[in-house]
Parts: sequence; structure tokens; C-alpha cells
Amino acid sequence: MGGDYAPAEVVKGAMLVAREDAQTQIILVGDRDVLAEQLSALGELPNNIVVHHASERIGMAEHPVTAVQEKRDSSLVIAGLMVKSGEADATFSAGNTGAAMAFATLELGRVPGIKRPAIATTLPTPHGRTLLLDAGANPDCTPQNLMQFALLGSIYAEKALGRTNPTVGLLNIGGEAGKGNELVKATYPLLQASGLNFVGNVEGNSVFEHAADVVVCDAFAGNVLLKSAEGIAELMLHTIQRDLAALADGEAKNVLAAVLRGLVARVDHEETGGAPLLGINGVSVIGHGRSYARGIASGIRLARDIARSGFVAALRAALPTG
Amino acid sequence: MGGDYAPAEVVKGAMLVAREDAQTQIILVGDRDVLAEQLSALGELPNNIVVHHASERIGMAEHPVTAVQEKRDSSLVIAGLMVKSGEADATFSAGNTGAAMAFATLELGRVPGIKRPAIATTLPTPHGRTLLLDAGANPDCTPQNLMQFALLGSIYAEKALGRTNPTVGLLNIGGEAGKGNELVKATYPLLQASGLNFVGNVEGNSVFEHAADVVVCDAFAGNVLLKSAEGIAELMLHTIQRDLAALADGEAKNVLAAVLRGLVARVDHEETGGAPLLGINGVSVIGHGRSYARGIASGIRLARDIARSGFVAALRAALPTG
Repeated sequence: MGGDYAPAEVVKGAMLVAREDAQTQIILVGDRDVLAEQLSALGELPNNIVVHHASERIGMAEHPVTAVQEKRDSSLVIAGLMVKSGEADATFSAGNTGAAMAFATLELGRVPGIKRPAIATTLPTPHGRTLLLDAGANPDCTPQNLMQFALLGSIYAEKALGRTNPTVGLLNIGGEAGKGNELVKATYPLLQASGLNFVGNVEGNSVFEHAADVVVCDAFAGNVLLKSAEGIAELMLHTIQRDLAALADGEAKNVLAAVLRGLVARVDHEETGGAPLLGINGVSVIGHGRSYARGIASGIRLARDIARSGFVAALRAALPTG
Repeated sequence: MGGDYAPAEVVKGAMLVAREDAQTQIILVGDRDVLAEQLSALGELPNNIVVHHASERIGMAEHPVTAVQEKRDSSLVIAGLMVKSGEADATFSAGNTGAAMAFATLELGRVPGIKRPAIATTLPTPHGRTLLLDAGANPDCTPQNLMQFALLGSIYAEKALGRTNPTVGLLNIGGEAGKGNELVKATYPLLQASGLNFVGNVEGNSVFEHAADVVVCDAFAGNVLLKSAEGIAELMLHTIQRDLAALADGEAKNVLAAVLRGLVARVDHEETGGAPLLGINGVSVIGHGRSYARGIASGIRLARDIARSGFVAALRAALPTG
């Protein structure tokens, strides 16, 4: 029920995954009448997609904690409780990000030893995607928080992205040790002593050159990095679209249209579909609110893949107990 | 003598401006023999370009404060002292940024009332360029620092960029008041009460949509924003270059090459040439180390235009004295 183009695009995206992957059971949680109507428009219903009724929904502008506490029959809370009870292995939502985070933190809870869960996202580079965290959960961090993000990211890169001994970098404003603000200067020696495969500082441009498999930062810097890249990418894509519109039909126009499609595929959020919240007892992927069916499908696949990867169990095993 | 392609490209850039603008007197400060040799390769010497000898140079890796204190006969120090004495109206350097900042802060000094000078830069948008500061001087800031950056930026936008009643935004990770880290949450009410034309929070992507004429942030966030934009822009430009190289000669290739040139012109640092240090007693523009002649020329023009704009006098007039 959440997302700018819900329910139509969310249901379409779920159907895409249900049809391509018979091994994955998809439970659509939301208003049963609304969902039935959407599904009926999409042809024959595969066996691996079912509806679970939820009478309420949490709006994009609602206060996250209050909404989660008061709307117990909302699609977001019911889906989350299904993960908590083991009835489901992962949730995906393109709705209220804060509410999804609040539910995960308050009700699924943190993996013992983890102080602050973080949102991870991946960015395009010429050598595969780079993991960046925190991308949205903690705008103010301590050096210890950043060090835990490095651990979360490192295990995630290994289990969910298949990287061997993943490299970890610290987002900074210069390459040399000793650069940066107080936070990163205090974090640097902790990462050096962490036993992780720390490769030093990574500048904002080098993130897109795959300077490290995992790049850690506070969520303020992470958000600025992501939004800045989005802003300049859109500016460039619009420039090409304008050039394209001015061309007469013909080979040149076809070539430019193909170049544009290639660029969009490279930088578009619809390709990744969502960002997992790492450090909680379960799998929760938060989709971009502006996702269409293709983005929703990518997000559902991501949630499925993380659940299958054994990331949460590996994280638990990596932390000292008690 | 500073910059990755100095002295050849720096001298060429200076010559470009000397030839196009007879009203501007250019003083090249550096080794007289080296400069004479470079100039002799560029044809007839216009009357408005002269050489001022400096026997030393500050390298890119030298410690800024130490270098400025010890190398009193370096090109950077001598050029700076000419501004201090009134013999020159502005300096431009593509050399050691830290040394240029150290000289400006220690020897030209801050305008009375300004706590921390800031580096300003401009970014492309579909509606002209947006000013961002701090882009490099202060990685850790107080709310009062950010408020002063807003004042610096506002006066600069008015005097040097010709904006009437420029709008000021606060770089943040959400649009609503109350979003962000502790720093920006404490800065928001100060900007509201500042008497400046404050338009609220601006997210990283909206910077490139001209959400405000002036966007303020600490230099950590500012650097991350700039470098991230640079990184994704280069990734996209490389993708197009690869597509271009794969095309056979013909109309389609010509069209794509033109599109690429248009994009480069839009996002390339050579177009802006440099970033002024604002809040000091004088005009000092810091060029990108990787500048070729075109970028050097842009930076020299910028320094000239700021000097002519009366920015420093306007800033002094705007601050309470004593």
C-alpha cells in the first residue's frame, strides 16, 4: 500500500517476480479488495502470490513511531510482524521509510551488540557496484557507530554480494590519513585496528571508481553523496533528452536514444530497487518511494536474495555474545 | 608556478585573458627565466602582461603554514603580498590550496567580524549556476559559522553574480524543518532570524535544480557533494566516450560527439576556473590543480570580476564595526 505509485505499480512489480521465480512465495499485505482488483487486471494469478488483509495503511507524512504504535492493522506493521513470527523471511516496502525503520528497530530489534542499524545502498562503478552505508538512518554518528557500519557492510558484501575479503573505505575529503572532520579523524585509527580489510580514506568521486567494496559514512554525508549524484545525473540526462528531442528521425536519433537508455540503466534507482536496513533481526528492504513496477521487482528480488544469503545469521555469529 | 600543468598552461591561460581584455593588467609571479621562455613561445607580448620575479615555489605536498612562513620569496607569497600592499587587486593560483588559504588567513587577514573564511564554488543548474559554500575550508563548523557563510554567500551572489535579493538555502537531508544532523538543526532557526532571504532546507539533488541562489554547508558535506557530482559525471561521460569510440564515422558519430561536448561544457570545472576564498581582506581565487589554459583563463577572469564587483567593500559595510 506504500509508495508514490501504489498499489498499481507495487502489485505489478510483485507479479513480475512471482512469474519469474516459482521458488519465491510472495505475500501482498494490504486492503484485500484493492489488491484483488489490481491483481484481476494482470491476468492469471500464479500459485506463489497470495493476499494477506490489512485494514489500515501508514501514509508518507505520518510520524513514524506514532504510526507504528497506533496503526497495528496497517500493511507495514502486519508485514513486519510476519517476519518477526517467522511466517515470512523478508519485507519490502516503498512506503514511509521512517515507519519501516521504526518498526524494524522497535519490534524486530537490533542484533545483539549492534548499537545503531544502518541503511545500505549500492552505487554504480565501472567495476561493479560499491556498497555505501549509512545512507539514511543516523545523521549524527560516533566513531564507534562508523566502525560497526564497516562490520555490517563487510559481512553484507561477503554474504549478499559475494565479495571475498571485501575492502572497506572511509568516506573523506582527502586521501591522506589525518584529513577530514573530527568524526572521521577519530574513526580512522579504529578502522585500522579493526581487523577488517581497511584501505583508508575514499573521496566522493573515488566512490564511483570502486575505490573500496564498502564505504562508510554518517547518514548526513551519505545522503548528500547520493542526492548530489542523483542531481547531476538528472541534469545530464535532461540535457541529452533535450538534444534527442531536437533531432529529426534517423540513425543519429536512434543511436543517441540507445546511449541514453544505457546511461539510464547505469544510474537509475529502478535497477537496484531498494536499500536494506542492516543490523536488525530480520530482512527489511526499503524501496524508493518513486518506484515503478521494475523498481519494485528489483527491491523484492533484493529482499529475497538477502534472506537466502544468510546475512543475519553471519552477522550474529560475528558478534561477541552476551 | 603552481598547478599540475604549470608553468606552460598557466602562462597560456594568462595570455588568453591579456589578449582579450586590454583593461586588465596581468602580473605573472614566478621564476623570470622560466616565464620568459614560456612567454616567448606564445608570440608577441601584449603590453598588459608583465613578469614579477620570485625565486622560490611552494610544492603541492608542502605543509601550508610552514611553507608560507618559510618561503617568503615564493610566487604564492609574493603575489599575496602584492594584494596586501595594494599593488595588485586579486590573486589567482592553481597551486597548493592550503598554502593559498594559509596566506590569505594569516597575512591578508579576515574582514573584521568574520570568524571563518569559506571557499565558495558554483554548480550548474538549468537556471544558471548556484553558489555553494563552504566548499573546502572548514570541515567542522558551528551554527554561527554556517550563518556567516550565508551572509558571505548572499553578498557575493549580489555583488559578484548580479543576483537581486539572493535566496539562501541550508544543505540538508530532507526538505522539512526539523530534519538533519545536530549542526543543521541548530542552524535553521539562526537563518530564519537572520534577515537574509532564507528559503529553508535544500537537498543534494535540488542544489542542481537551483533551489536557492546560495547553499550553505560545512566543508565536509560541501566536498562530498562536489566530489560525488564529479564522480558520477565522469562515469557518465566515460560511458558516452566508450559508445562514441565504438561508432563508425558518420552523422551519428558527429551528433554524439556534439552531445558529449555540450555535457562536458555543462559539468566541466574548466568553465568556472576556480573558487574564491570569501571573508578575507582581499580577493584570492583558488584554481583546480588539474586546470589547462582554458580553466586558468576562467579563474583569472573570475578573480578580476570579483575585484571589480566591490564584494570586499560591500562585506565590510554589512558587518558591524568594532
